[in-house]
Amino acid sequence: MDDALPIAARLTQALIAAESVTPARGTVFDVLEAMLLPLGFAVDRFVAGEAPDGPVENLLAVRGSGGPHFAFAGHVDVVPAGTGWSAGAFEPVVRGDLLHGRGAVDMKGAIGAFIAACADPQPRGTLSLVITGDEEGPAIHGTRALIERMRERDLKPDLCLVGEPTSAHRLGDTIKIGRRGSVNIWIDVPGQAGHVAYPHLADNPIPRLVAALAEIDALVLDTGTDWFQPSNIEITEIIVGNPATNVIPPLASARLSIRFNDRHRGADLGERIAAIVHAHAPGATVRPVVSGEAFLTQPGPLSTIVGDAIEARLGLRPELSTSGGTSDARFLSALCPVVEFGLLNATMHKADEAVAIPDLVALADIYRDIISRALA
Amino acid sequence: MDDALPIAARLTQALIAAESVTPARGTVFDVLEAMLLPLGFAVDRFVAGEAPDGPVENLLAVRGSGGPHFAFAGHVDVVPAGTGWSAGAFEPVVRGDLLHGRGAVDMKGAIGAFIAACADPQPRGTLSLVITGDEEGPAIHGTRALIERMRERDLKPDLCLVGEPTSAHRLGDTIKIGRRGSVNIWIDVPGQAGHVAYPHLADNPIPRLVAALAEIDALVLDTGTDWFQPSNIEITEIIVGNPATNVIPPLASARLSIRFNDRHRGADLGERIAAIVHAHAPGATVRPVVSGEAFLTQPGPLSTIVGDAIEARLGLRPELSTSGGTSDARFLSALCPVVEFGLLNATMHKADEAVAIPDLVALADIYRDIISRALA
Repeated sequence: MDDALPIAARLTQALIAAESVTPARGTVFDVLEAMLLPLGFAVDRFVAGEAPDGPVENLLAVRGSGGPHFAFAGHVDVVPAGTGWSAGAFEPVVRGDLLHGRGAVDMKGAIGAFIAACADPQPRGTLSLVITGDEEGPAIHGTRALIERMRERDLKPDLCLVGEPTSAHRLGDTIKIGRRGSVNIWIDVPGQAGHVAYPHLADNPIPRLVAALAEIDALVLDTGTDWFQPSNIEITEIIVGNPATNVIPPLASARLSIRFNDRHRGADLGERIAAIVHAHAPGATVRPVVSGEAFLTQPGPLSTIVGDAIEARLGLRPELSTSGGTSDARFLSALCPVVEFGLLNATMHKADEAVAIPDLVALADIYRDIISRALA
Repeated sequence: MDDALPIAARLTQALIAAESVTPARGTVFDVLEAMLLPLGFAVDRFVAGEAPDGPVENLLAVRGSGGPHFAFAGHVDVVPAGTGWSAGAFEPVVRGDLLHGRGAVDMKGAIGAFIAACADPQPRGTLSLVITGDEEGPAIHGTRALIERMRERDLKPDLCLVGEPTSAHRLGDTIKIGRRGSVNIWIDVPGQAGHVAYPHLADNPIPRLVAALAEIDALVLDTGTDWFQPSNIEITEIIVGNPATNVIPPLASARLSIRFNDRHRGADLGERIAAIVHAHAPGATVRPVVSGEAFLTQPGPLSTIVGDAIEARLGLRPELSTSGGTSDARFLSALCPVVEFGLLNATMHKADEAVAIPDLVALADIYRDIISRALA
């Protein structure tokens, strides 16, 4: 490690060097725990789940007691290195003012910056870190298990900041106050196989599936809200699997992906799709899998705290966004108001993922200010 | 071989024993030629085509000269044995009055019966056998090459009988006077791949394909004719190939199979489908492959000859049908009136394919009568 680097960068380097492709366990948590203990955090690590969605390691670190309680949430697992790196994805290197390595912005950098911010004395109340080893994977035994752990321990944050990389063009330009929900729906329409020359002896399932999909595609779920774009349905797959030109197939299947705003719940959308499908194909099976409900933290105290801290340090006011994919904030929003704010997302999941060291320093300053305001 | 068997059965046994899974060449033609030479036929064998649709062996046997010219057409290739046989598919065995073996009814039995019928003196004119080694396969270099050979040799039949197994419940109950045409149409709708969370940056091809297929499925091509059932469109396949739930796919493809009567031509149907697809998806490609045009031999002299011969021997009048799949009669119909008549089709292409020996004897008698009437 380079002793001339700012503390936030040195912590980030050490976290990157602890290779932790999702699901993460072991070393990266040893390193994280070692950083938190000297700062006075009580560290609670546990492993949850079994194959195929686990086991997953999680860490809950708590300092202080009583209210107010401010929580920082995030993950130490990273997506695989992939190809195209100029150097080793897990051998962090500094070139110019950039620190390269898998997880630099998503989101070991934000964890490094937050821990650096925790070096300051804590005014009062409770400060916690809610860190999982499975955000990039199935996310079944990650943040959800941590929330359960907090419930068991009667720990309920008043405000929660998720350190995902939300900045688009420059640090601080965007924070997320909500995320759309996501539901995938599998549709199977059974028929009766046969020869195309004798269609009366067969029952082709494709026309019924096509009719249902045409009606589903014409659905307008809503026209958007003050904070959300319109909910959207994509047909992402159709499978028949019939190589023979003269055969009527026995089954036709499709898959939908619906990203929806806070006017809907995943289960309701599943029922609505099922009703359409069954009107065309009474024998069909419709299987919705909700990966997350929509959530919205209405602009208020938390977004004001975060926005003020960004403006004080960087001189810009962040856009309050609800765009993009899902994040673990969808689970945490069940506990308390949640806002997401972190580094630039331009290189996340890509080769040569990198963070600007001045951004790490600025982010640590902003996080320090947020803690101070949240626990004031 | 069992010398107690009727000649038609002995010839059929010998043909079955000459294994000839499509495309057939060599031994089975050696055997066939050996049967025809003693009966006074001049045998012309040739190999046509190259991989992947060839090479294919064909045989043209001619006896006599001048008019009238009656031709018998068929094939010595068979579909693969498959599984489930009680004994070897290519080791013909007689159990009770059944002769078992691949090709027994489709259609070595009919060839054996026809050759048995040729043992009688020929009244006048020309008698020919038009036999291919590729009817069950691509059929590109089979009967079509034989027709070209006949044109080169200035041989033009006046009437043609195809020995396919047309009988449904008892020998002679059905003859085919026409067949529907067949066209398969491949449709590719291109789009732009992307992430389901950012649909504005992508272009999902599935809704356009679905809309086109819904319109195609609602098409009524016709309501049938005096001799044909209505033309029919089946959507036989849809391919997207997108395993990722969060990805909008770049391409959606489908395949249609249209069986059509003599009110349509394959190319016209291809253009009609293309117009519908392009109205929904201007960038789509639509590729029709016509496997055969519809043909109809209007009830007349040939069907009367065949019907009279059947009635004389079996006491029943055959139904004149145009149902079922395609056959090589679609090519031969360009030459002269064509009718199809042969054995029971119940076991064709199945395990334990078998022919009743009394049917072989009756079929030889009927074929003998047909030759006699056609060359009278």
